[in-house]
Amino acid sequence: MGGDHAPAEIVAGTILANRAGLGRMALVGDREQLAPLVHGPGSEDIAIIHAPGVIAMGDSPSVAVRGSAGTSLGVAVELVRDGTADAVVSAGNSGAFLAIALIRLRTIPGIARPAIAAVLPTRTGQPCVLLDAGANVDCRPEWLVQFAIMGSAYARAALGIANPRVGIVSNGEERSKGNAQTIETGVLLDSAPVNFIGNVEGRDLFDGAVDVFVTDGFVGNVMLKLAEGAGAFFRDTMKESFEHAAPLSKVGAVLSKPVFNAMRDRMNYENYGGAPLLGVRGNCIVAHGRSSRNAICSAIRAAAAEVREDVVGKIAQSVAQPIKT
Amino acid sequence: MGGDHAPAEIVAGTILANRAGLGRMALVGDREQLAPLVHGPGSEDIAIIHAPGVIAMGDSPSVAVRGSAGTSLGVAVELVRDGTADAVVSAGNSGAFLAIALIRLRTIPGIARPAIAAVLPTRTGQPCVLLDAGANVDCRPEWLVQFAIMGSAYARAALGIANPRVGIVSNGEERSKGNAQTIETGVLLDSAPVNFIGNVEGRDLFDGAVDVFVTDGFVGNVMLKLAEGAGAFFRDTMKESFEHAAPLSKVGAVLSKPVFNAMRDRMNYENYGGAPLLGVRGNCIVAHGRSSRNAICSAIRAAAAEVREDVVGKIAQSVAQPIKT
Repeated sequence: MGGDHAPAEIVAGTILANRAGLGRMALVGDREQLAPLVHGPGSEDIAIIHAPGVIAMGDSPSVAVRGSAGTSLGVAVELVRDGTADAVVSAGNSGAFLAIALIRLRTIPGIARPAIAAVLPTRTGQPCVLLDAGANVDCRPEWLVQFAIMGSAYARAALGIANPRVGIVSNGEERSKGNAQTIETGVLLDSAPVNFIGNVEGRDLFDGAVDVFVTDGFVGNVMLKLAEGAGAFFRDTMKESFEHAAPLSKVGAVLSKPVFNAMRDRMNYENYGGAPLLGVRGNCIVAHGRSSRNAICSAIRAAAAEVREDVVGKIAQSVAQPIKT
Repeated sequence: MGGDHAPAEIVAGTILANRAGLGRMALVGDREQLAPLVHGPGSEDIAIIHAPGVIAMGDSPSVAVRGSAGTSLGVAVELVRDGTADAVVSAGNSGAFLAIALIRLRTIPGIARPAIAAVLPTRTGQPCVLLDAGANVDCRPEWLVQFAIMGSAYARAALGIANPRVGIVSNGEERSKGNAQTIETGVLLDSAPVNFIGNVEGRDLFDGAVDVFVTDGFVGNVMLKLAEGAGAFFRDTMKESFEHAAPLSKVGAVLSKPVFNAMRDRMNYENYGGAPLLGVRGNCIVAHGRSSRNAICSAIRAAAAEVREDVVGKIAQSVAQPIKT
């Protein structure tokens, strides 16, 4: 029931995922609204679990947690807690999702704080992981080390990268560059069970210089929104430039359309399947509030990969691993 | 003598600035290398001030300060300190430039730390200012308030914005969002002599949502490099997409060329004239290390505007202004 285009696009995305054989689907929410939307090819065997309440986009996380009983988000997370569902995907209030997941599922032993991992396109074609993308604003260095471990486990399991390279986001490549937090984190990462490469800069995000970009949830959120904003800026500037262009250039735009479409697909967040909430005892995928049916289907695909590859179990193993000396 | 294309492009840019009547030009550096480059239209009356030494790009700021006597950067800053020059522009080692300017010129009374202000293109056509873009990694809230005051003075003087809107970079628009540093800064900005709007997000940078984006030098540097990296990523992705395109799309690319060129000009950092170092008692412009002659000319244009509009004096006045109650 959550997201800008709920419930229609959420249901349509679930039907797409069902047709693609990604698993057994259950929609959680108001049965009267959902049932009429579940029809056509691919809608077979999709369960509807009735939950009359809805958490509003504006509700604060603490209000949402207290009032979560009987809401679509609250019930969906409880299905995972009780083992009835393997994963939960929501495009609703992400702060509420985070808080409810933390309270109901709790963290994996050894993990202090869960983190939101954003999966982003790069120049190489191999996506990278940026975390924390917004769950924790003020972070201790030890938490950032846990983010590195969780991001590596996710990159291995869900992105198929054998030995993910980890970088810490900083204001310069040299190890001496950074703020108090990142410099201390760098020292800890040297002896952590991850493939730590060193500092990375903002420009490295699109180059795939590393597979896992580690930062606190304040910087990560600013980076993620800046990257999204840059994409919109370039698209809009191009569109406007063509609108004011000479007729011959407009012909050029029409002829170039297949290329622009290919570019859009390559950089489209819809293909990158939502952001996993890592560190809780259960698979939770935070889908974008603006999610279309394709974005929801990609998020379900990411959830299925997390389940298949046992990301939660692998994070638990990594955290339990002895520190390198 | 500093920068990837020094001294040839630095001299060529100075000649362009001289032709454009931006002021009286002096080149500081090794006379034997500089003199043969100063020729042709626009080279009349350009002074050469001999300084045999060069600060290397890899020198640490502290090493650079100790060894700055007789270097091109050290001598150029001293010309400003002594009142012989009104402004200094350098594409060399920016950490060294910052340190030498701080030691030799000192800060304006009431300013704790100088900040690097990046001037960036926006969707509206009116550039915005992002500071601190990298001078200070760990900042106190009071410093961020001073950055807001300095950025406003610069936006008024150099960009001609009558009442610049100030935003603090955060992980959400609501005033409750932020880390400990930004939330405390927000409270202080409410009673500071600036037009404080509230929180801004990463995506707002390209929208011109505010005129002055305030953040610490760690986040600001990550943002600036991310924005640059995004630009390169989009350009390269477009180029590659056209290379692998069908012949008809390649014809489209040729016809679209004027539009791509217009876009490039609109988003080209070369037109935005380097980053002023604000807060020291003198006009200092940090040009990009990769500066071409056009970028150097733009940086000199920005320096001339700072002198003409007395940015240093206006920052001093703003800092001395009583706090709103």
